[in-house]
Amino acid sequence: MFSEQDKSYMTRAIELAQQGQYTTTPNPNVGCVIVKNGRIIGEGFHQKAGESHAEVHALQEAGTHARGATVYVTLEPCSHFGKTPPCAKGLIDAGVNKVIAAMVDPNPQVAGRGLAMLKQAGVETAFGLLEEQARALNDGFLKRMEFGLPFVSCKLAASVDGKTALSNGQSKWITSSAARRDVQIFRARSCAVLTGADTVLVDDAKMNVRESECDISLPEGKQLRQPTRVIFDSQNRLSPNLPLFKIDSPVIILRTSLDNSHDWPHFVEQVVVPDSKLKINCHAALALLAQRGINRVWLEAGATLAGVFHQQTLIDEFVIYLAPKIIGHDGRGLFNTQTIACMNDIATLNFTSVERIDEDVRLILRPS
Amino acid sequence: MFSEQDKSYMTRAIELAQQGQYTTTPNPNVGCVIVKNGRIIGEGFHQKAGESHAEVHALQEAGTHARGATVYVTLEPCSHFGKTPPCAKGLIDAGVNKVIAAMVDPNPQVAGRGLAMLKQAGVETAFGLLEEQARALNDGFLKRMEFGLPFVSCKLAASVDGKTALSNGQSKWITSSAARRDVQIFRARSCAVLTGADTVLVDDAKMNVRESECDISLPEGKQLRQPTRVIFDSQNRLSPNLPLFKIDSPVIILRTSLDNSHDWPHFVEQVVVPDSKLKINCHAALALLAQRGINRVWLEAGATLAGVFHQQTLIDEFVIYLAPKIIGHDGRGLFNTQTIACMNDIATLNFTSVERIDEDVRLILRPS
Repeated sequence: MFSEQDKSYMTRAIELAQQGQYTTTPNPNVGCVIVKNGRIIGEGFHQKAGESHAEVHALQEAGTHARGATVYVTLEPCSHFGKTPPCAKGLIDAGVNKVIAAMVDPNPQVAGRGLAMLKQAGVETAFGLLEEQARALNDGFLKRMEFGLPFVSCKLAASVDGKTALSNGQSKWITSSAARRDVQIFRARSCAVLTGADTVLVDDAKMNVRESECDISLPEGKQLRQPTRVIFDSQNRLSPNLPLFKIDSPVIILRTSLDNSHDWPHFVEQVVVPDSKLKINCHAALALLAQRGINRVWLEAGATLAGVFHQQTLIDEFVIYLAPKIIGHDGRGLFNTQTIACMNDIATLNFTSVERIDEDVRLILRPS
Repeated sequence: MFSEQDKSYMTRAIELAQQGQYTTTPNPNVGCVIVKNGRIIGEGFHQKAGESHAEVHALQEAGTHARGATVYVTLEPCSHFGKTPPCAKGLIDAGVNKVIAAMVDPNPQVAGRGLAMLKQAGVETAFGLLEEQARALNDGFLKRMEFGLPFVSCKLAASVDGKTALSNGQSKWITSSAARRDVQIFRARSCAVLTGADTVLVDDAKMNVRESECDISLPEGKQLRQPTRVIFDSQNRLSPNLPLFKIDSPVIILRTSLDNSHDWPHFVEQVVVPDSKLKINCHAALALLAQRGINRVWLEAGATLAGVFHQQTLIDEFVIYLAPKIIGHDGRGLFNTQTIACMNDIATLNFTSVERIDEDVRLILRPS
């Protein structure tokens, strides 16, 4: 149904889409290529929510040559007036001949209406070309659209025997500086960095992206957007004098009851989440973040919170850095979980990536 | 000093040497290539202790053409009468012009005398070509010659959070059948498989190489030699009715005192090792194995024995299979060790290999 030529144009559109990975949220990453007479006449990608969509950039570049051209786009063109007019209409007005989308947009505001609008106007349409690769561009956006939850990556760093710290709590540093720089890149791709009050209190963690520590290539003229820092603090243990609150960038503190005993900085919001037995309900917390347009959560927590998220099957991806060290049995473990009585009850994952990061190894696993 | 051409011939000699990896012990793996007028006229490798050395095979192939040729050999030719006459003499008699050895033989019976003998007879000599690769052929033999101890590989299999079993002891199976087949290959390369009585009692382990379960390519006409099975049994808990003793192949039981209450099969030898506080002295045990010509030990033990070997820095290589599973904090750990009080006190290792084995990951680490 699709030719090798089609595939190569869509591959290029996917490459373009990736360039927006640090800036488009809550919008999806989208890339677009316009082709006429076997030549690319326009390219574009979505750079930032509120700004032009990928198709608009590509049409601008193509100009009047767009008439009669074929359009390759990684996500179905939108059909609704949002912050920008519908792209389907723009493509119709430009007189394109054919639109190939890698996938239908699961956003209920689109969900096939973009392609229908094109078809009705006499534009040939097709979809499903390199869909898997196109979906991978937007793990977070798709999880939110399809499940009303963000995509959760759980980051852990341990010795090769699975210990995150010595028995006395010392953990600086298990992994190398290269691994810690790698973490900065994952944080930068995320809409929110989530952790527990414990980590903030014990490690004086700031949980921000330190641009100087990582190599992030942003679209021209675009600034890094800091992920929202989300802290679970069911016992109201945080106070405004912590290093976390010295950085002027959004913080959401999730609580079971408001803490009115402190004056919090302007960028801090306290949100009460339904609780279960005085613990924050993790599922409700994630649903709440999704409602606020959070596509991707980077969970960087201790064994307790990681264990709870794992047991409630809320983790979509485990990113585990292993250092070439042995700590031994009384070091601290990765996941506090309930006892498993039978081998068949272990959740099975898949390694989706195994890479050396300087002297360490990074394992990425997903539920199978 | 050495040309690219020299390197390619030595690379071939190393390839040949590898073919003996399952059969030569206690002898080293050695390969030999004889070159004349830019053409290989003879090749050979050592296949089995007591049989012809690599040089003899290569000289046989070269015949009278060997006169005036250059010989590439991965280990210095021997100078002593062992089970076979000295290869240095054979090369002199054949009238070769030049001998390039990858490395000097650390065996105190040779240690430079082979090259000296050649030189004295007017044969040009050189050494040090691809020495590192040549050393890698004979980790075990070299450790035994240089330190009087075998090279110890410690095998472990765990979930990605470093647990070898559930809290109730269940561990069948953490890793996939592909990983278990891979273990069979490592066992086959080893001179001894070492474990504790616990593993034998709890797992009914046989600790032999099951040829049907792995893909081992042996030199023509050669049989797989089973590694000696060595069991630490400081409390005399083993009895002859265990599955281990149903397989007619050498077993050494290391004890702190002889057990005369049982009739042991003919292939079982009890050896008393010096003890410290009723525990077997691991260093003494390894020295004893080295004295018996054991080059490579494959340690396949539980967290206690692995922990003791690790703490006494007796492990040369860790081979860790990680399955894409999470067991949680109350699973059993990899190493029982003393508490570490400070991050600087952690022994630092290096990942020397990181590979996917079907659905699992195999990490190989060595002390740095």
